[in-house]
Parts: sequence; structure tokens; C-alpha cells
Amino acid sequence: MKEQRVAVLGPGSWGTALSQVLNDNGHKVIIWGHTEDQIQEINEQHSNKRYFEEVILDEKIQATTDLAEALKDTDAILFVVPTKATRIVAKQVAEVLDHKVRIMHASKGLEQGTHERLSTILEEELPAELRSEIVVVSGPSHAEETIRRDITLISAASKNEADAKYAQELFSNDYFRLYTNTDVVGVETAGALKNIIAVGAGALHGLGFGDNAKAAIITRGLAEITRLGVAMGAEPLTYIGLSGVGDLIVTGTSVHSRNWRAGDALGRGQKLEEIEQNMGMIIEGVSTTKAAYELGLSLGIDMPITETIYKCLYEAAEPREAILNLMRRESRPENEF
Amino acid sequence: MKEQRVAVLGPGSWGTALSQVLNDNGHKVIIWGHTEDQIQEINEQHSNKRYFEEVILDEKIQATTDLAEALKDTDAILFVVPTKATRIVAKQVAEVLDHKVRIMHASKGLEQGTHERLSTILEEELPAELRSEIVVVSGPSHAEETIRRDITLISAASKNEADAKYAQELFSNDYFRLYTNTDVVGVETAGALKNIIAVGAGALHGLGFGDNAKAAIITRGLAEITRLGVAMGAEPLTYIGLSGVGDLIVTGTSVHSRNWRAGDALGRGQKLEEIEQNMGMIIEGVSTTKAAYELGLSLGIDMPITETIYKCLYEAAEPREAILNLMRRESRPENEF
Repeated sequence: MKEQRVAVLGPGSWGTALSQVLNDNGHKVIIWGHTEDQIQEINEQHSNKRYFEEVILDEKIQATTDLAEALKDTDAILFVVPTKATRIVAKQVAEVLDHKVRIMHASKGLEQGTHERLSTILEEELPAELRSEIVVVSGPSHAEETIRRDITLISAASKNEADAKYAQELFSNDYFRLYTNTDVVGVETAGALKNIIAVGAGALHGLGFGDNAKAAIITRGLAEITRLGVAMGAEPLTYIGLSGVGDLIVTGTSVHSRNWRAGDALGRGQKLEEIEQNMGMIIEGVSTTKAAYELGLSLGIDMPITETIYKCLYEAAEPREAILNLMRRESRPENEF
Repeated sequence: MKEQRVAVLGPGSWGTALSQVLNDNGHKVIIWGHTEDQIQEINEQHSNKRYFEEVILDEKIQATTDLAEALKDTDAILFVVPTKATRIVAKQVAEVLDHKVRIMHASKGLEQGTHERLSTILEEELPAELRSEIVVVSGPSHAEETIRRDITLISAASKNEADAKYAQELFSNDYFRLYTNTDVVGVETAGALKNIIAVGAGALHGLGFGDNAKAAIITRGLAEITRLGVAMGAEPLTYIGLSGVGDLIVTGTSVHSRNWRAGDALGRGQKLEEIEQNMGMIIEGVSTTKAAYELGLSLGIDMPITETIYKCLYEAAEPREAILNLMRRESRPENEF
């Protein structure tokens, strides 16, 4: 593959780690963000200490606050902005972009209110003649490990297999590896909805439960997010893959995950407001829980774990009592997708 | 459900924990084992210190070395013996049993040489007129947590749903909960084959890799054991359930798992002989790796992770080199079951 020019929108931890992967592969990366200090730090000190205290980035990785500059002559755009910023940034891109590019995104969430997937938002906001089919890049990946060049395997999903293969070739190297998938709905909903289960697994830990209970909530949680995903158009088997089970293992069992930590705090008795204040970062799983709860109601999908977490987060239900209520539900067969 | 008399064959950690669950539910439990000292300890000191240093069992739980005594008037038999002892013990039961009973098992493995599932062995060795359909009880469960009455959810699978429901009712209570399933092949192969991936996840840890790599080997491992299971007759979606993903989470991410610990030792440079000597316990995942490798070859299933672990265990391949070779395999689509 010849050198590509890639605009990475969003200088967060994952955007920075993916920028380093692309730079390692010989591509020209320009990171776009709107915080002057942070952009200047990347350009002058080659660091992004808010996320990576110790890491020095390659000097070839450049950053800008000027979206037009980031998009000039670019071959591809990678969206890695928070869910709630996706539509706003996509509108800005649509105003500035003057040539056809590949569009990828690596964020995980559902839009509040509309419950839309992020690739749907990008399809709506970016004119079809200026873009490829959207590619969703998603899977088990602590940015802290990818930036150290530890082995990471994720999925690249697109309606158009050639676009997925483009992303696969763009990103893959000795330590970073992509598997293609055509089930965009599956990969995207799995990546978003798994954060709910991560909150739940964290809550069990905060309440003092052990590995058996953790495995149970992860597995039964996976069953119910699969039911919701299937109702939204996903293939159930995608949920067994990297963007589903894989990501759940990383997010649902790790103190590195902010969703898990938010759940842990919930289990230890903190209220949502406190948790959000203490974390000082966006907790996608919290808003995704609300979106999934509302979606489940409107689609008629039974989601007892999501409902329980929703009630603990938004209706001040008592977590231990709520979890024990879950256990007292009627016994039933296991596979109902 | 009226009080049942249950013979638990095998006084290991899981047999002991399940005996306590049954006793908590008001059933009469008799544990059978062949080690005099251990049986006497259970009867007289109400402990099984080899597995649970701190636990005192209820005095109502009795134990015997006399199989005829254990089986007398029993309503159900629960096999919890090591894989390699299953056929031998089943033959002994067939000689002694004089009335029709429910048959359940809670072991995880494939018979060496024949590669048979344990329920197939029980079907072969126990006359059909003396038994129900076999029920397989399997799922994410550290015995150490179940004996403390921590929340545990597992599967009960049988060809005959009524037999699965019997086990569900027999075992279920406030902290222990069973989901029924009719995919016996799926539940049984998932429980056995997941131990291979636990060895692999342990090996990655021993080699110093992080969470992303762990999630990757667990997920890609799950994909390949699913492929093998499907070739053996399993439903792929069973692998997303408690006996598949659920058990993998517990076994593949926990230092409590002897399979994980064996892999960890392998990653740190120990040879198979040393590992077996140091552990002093049966490591089902090691022999299951051999069985699955042979099965994969004979059924024409591509199992790169199993093959890699097999070569490290049995052909002295160097683990780091072997794992990095795995990464260099041709890029491919994700979902191929």
C-alpha cells in the first residue's frame, strides 16, 4: 500500500494510539482537535500527557486545530470523537471537505434521543459522493497497550468489503491486526452496548461479588445485548467476535476501563453525579445504558440486566437489592436470541 | 421438589461444592470416593482440606468408599470425576446399580484416544433402562466461590428437556442458578475445549503480554473451538453462553484456574513434565489440547491457536516465537463458523 494521508479527528487516548499505528505503517497522520494547548503539545513536545504520561510520539505525527488544514488532500478520515460530538464534527467536515475520501470511525456509543448508530450519523451528515462506505474499527483495545505496541486484534466492518479491506491494510502490522467483517450493525452495536455490561461487571465488583458472578453477568449481559442487536439488524454471531466478546473481556474485567470503574463506584455506593464528577472523563456506558433501555422498551426486547443498571444509575435503585432481584427471576432456557 | 437422594461421585473441589449446594436445598447427599482418609475426614471432621482449608461442611453430608452404599435407593447420580476416570467409574456403576436413576455429570474433557464426549461414554456404559437422558452441568464456576455461596450461574443441558429441568430444580436456589439447554454437544464441547484457550491465555500472561492480546487469544480461540464444536454437531450460539464465553471468562482470566496457571508456567519457560509435577493436580486443558488437535486434523478444521499450544506443550516449540508466528498469519474475514 502506498503512503496514505490520514486525518485523525479527536486527540483522545485511542485517537493518539491509532495515529501512532498509522505512523508506524509509514502513513502521514494529521490529528485534529479543538484544544489549542493539547495540539501545541503534540506538535512541539510530541506528547499527549493527559493520556500518556511517558510516551514520546514520532515527530512526523502532526496536529492542528484547523479542520480545513487536516482535511486538505487527505485520503482518509478517522473519526475518534465522543459519541455526542460525532454529528457536530461530521457537519463541520461536510462543510469543509472538497474531495472524495475513505471514512472510518473508532468510537463506541449510540446517539442520545435518536438512538442512532454512529455510522448512520456519518452517512446522514456526509454526502455520499464525497465518501466511501463507512468503516467501523472496533475491538478489544486498551489504548495504553496499543501505544506500547503490545499485540492488539480488532475488527474492521463495512457494508463494502473493499472499504473494510482498505482499513485492514492501512492499520495492520506486526503488533496490530484487523479482521474484516461486513456486519456493520453487529460490530457497531456490540462495541457500544458492551459498555453497559462493563458498568454492570464493575458494580458487582464494587459490591464484593466474585468471578462466578462476574462471568454470569457478562454472559447473560451478552445474551441480552445480542437480542437487542439482532432486533436492530445485527448477525448474532458477530457478538461472539472481537467487537463483542473480545471487547467485553477487556472492558468487563479491567480496572483500566472507565466504564468498569464507573460501575465499581456505583457498587460502592456513589451516585451518578458524583461518579461523573470524580471521573472527569466521558463515560460512554452510562449514556448507552439509557439509550439501550429506551430502545429495548420500544423494540419489546427483554433486557433485565440493562434495566437493573438503568434503575441504579438514573432512578437511585439500591444496587445490592437490585442485583439480588435479578437472581430471583424465573428460571428459563438459555438460548433465546 | 421433594427431598432427593443424590450420589456425588468424586470428592474433588467441584464435587464438594455441588454437594453443599444440594444439601442447602434440603437433599440427601452421599459423596463417593476411593481415598479412605479423605472420606473419613468428610464424615468425621466435616471438611475437605485438600481443596478448602477453611470450610466446615454440614454434618448431613455423608461420604463413603462403598459404591453400592452410595447408590442404594438413590434418585440421581452426579459424576464429577476426572475425564480419564469417567469410563472406569461408569462401568463400576453399571455393575452395582439396581434401579432407574437420573444421571448428571459436571466434568470437562474429551476422552484420550477416542475423543469421545463424557455424556457419550456414560450413554455407552450405563444401560438405557437404568437411566434418564444424561444431563451435563457446566458453566463459569470456581468451586472456591460456590462453596462460599457466592452467586453462580451455569447451564444444565440434556437431549430431554424434562431431565434438564430436573437438574435445574434440584440445584437452583438464591445463590446458585441453572439455565436449561438442549444442545448437549455444544455445552459439553464448550466446557471441554475452553480449557485449551485458558492454557493459551495463561501462556500469553507468562510471556508478558497485556489485556488486548489476552482478549484477542480468547476471542479468536473461541472462534476456532466453535468451528470444531460445530463440526462435532454443536449449535454455534451455545458458545456465546454460560458454558462457552462465560466459562472462558472465568478460566481464561483467573489465576485460580489450574489450566491458566499451567499456561502461565509454559509462558515462563517451564516444560510440560515440570508443570505437571509442580501442579500435582490433573490439568484437563493439557490433554484436551491433544484431543482437539487430533480432532481438528481428522475433521479438517483450521485451529491455529490449538495447534500452536499443542506444539508448545508436546513438541517443545518456543512459546514466544510460536505466538508471534500466529500473528503473522494471513489476514482474513472474522466470522467463519
